[in-house]
Amino acid sequence: MLDQEKADPARERLIKAGAALFAEHGFKGASVRQICASADTSINMIHHHFKSKQGLLDAVIDQFSSNVFATPARIMDFDPKSREDFFSRLELLFATTFEAFIEHRDTLAVVVRENGNPPAFLSYIQKLQKFLENAKSLGFVRPELDTEMITGFMLDRLLNQILHGNWIKNVYGETVVADQRKKREWLEANLSVFVSGISA
Amino acid sequence: MLDQEKADPARERLIKAGAALFAEHGFKGASVRQICASADTSINMIHHHFKSKQGLLDAVIDQFSSNVFATPARIMDFDPKSREDFFSRLELLFATTFEAFIEHRDTLAVVVRENGNPPAFLSYIQKLQKFLENAKSLGFVRPELDTEMITGFMLDRLLNQILHGNWIKNVYGETVVADQRKKREWLEANLSVFVSGISA
Repeated sequence: MLDQEKADPARERLIKAGAALFAEHGFKGASVRQICASADTSINMIHHHFKSKQGLLDAVIDQFSSNVFATPARIMDFDPKSREDFFSRLELLFATTFEAFIEHRDTLAVVVRENGNPPAFLSYIQKLQKFLENAKSLGFVRPELDTEMITGFMLDRLLNQILHGNWIKNVYGETVVADQRKKREWLEANLSVFVSGISA
Repeated sequence: MLDQEKADPARERLIKAGAALFAEHGFKGASVRQICASADTSINMIHHHFKSKQGLLDAVIDQFSSNVFATPARIMDFDPKSREDFFSRLELLFATTFEAFIEHRDTLAVVVRENGNPPAFLSYIQKLQKFLENAKSLGFVRPELDTEMITGFMLDRLLNQILHGNWIKNVYGETVVADQRKKREWLEANLSVFVSGISA
């Protein structure tokens, strides 16, 4: 991506409007006209920037890649210095990943529904598995556990609050996403199950 | 529901076809004509049995209620006799709930997407929480854990394999739903994290 493209405000508005409308109506259901109206651009701007609606979808999924995982991935950049260091980083990772999912929840819904496979998400998963394998070899995580399963448990739990927030609200009467205090309690309660689940 | 209605094969075919087509195209996207064609009934049968497409959706969600949770719910009907009895029933519960979700995955997708709130699902969740609270008071589950969070961890993990199977396949290269051996391994690996996460 060229810097000049990145900085174009109409292009950015189209990606944002595309993510919101694809999330609401699906890729097929959202029209080019609707997206341009919502982004406040003329009707030929999708063609100009992305060639087609499919090109816009690709850009939406790409942007998910580059924006969402930067902070959580940095937490895993160095080997843990101690058991305490590992678990405090794991907690931070849980919380920042959740925040990133919440911030980009429209795009996340589109990625999942359209079977998108953003490279940064895959590399985040691989990094998390390596981080856990490393903790295993240092004796912090129970050796018999499958790190792919641990990763899956954590991501499924975080993803479902975002992807199915409306449904969860309907069944349970509330979601944690909109309320800071509830969100913190939810994260702590889940971390408690998760950390004792993997701790050696 | 009258027994006579329950036994009507055209009615049953319509519910099945409705679940499959609502899952594939959404409630709005699936037409009455399409559903009747797939169920091999005449076009006025939806009106006859359910009054409207909305009535068919309600019946689809109701049926999810009555069919899915019968077996898993029975596992929780009696108080656990011992620690071993509790954990072996928990394993059975994990496995039978997963099987039920797999068998009814079309309906499950419709329930979640249309924000359905089947009473039997809610009562299953409440029963599971009570089962865990009971195990807590017997000293089998760590007292500081929030049983709502434990329930959520378990259900999110099971639900995501079903609801986002296509996406998981795209990201990970496989899902566990179609392969008996992989499914057993997956259940065992997840139970290992889960059971040590909650065990006192």
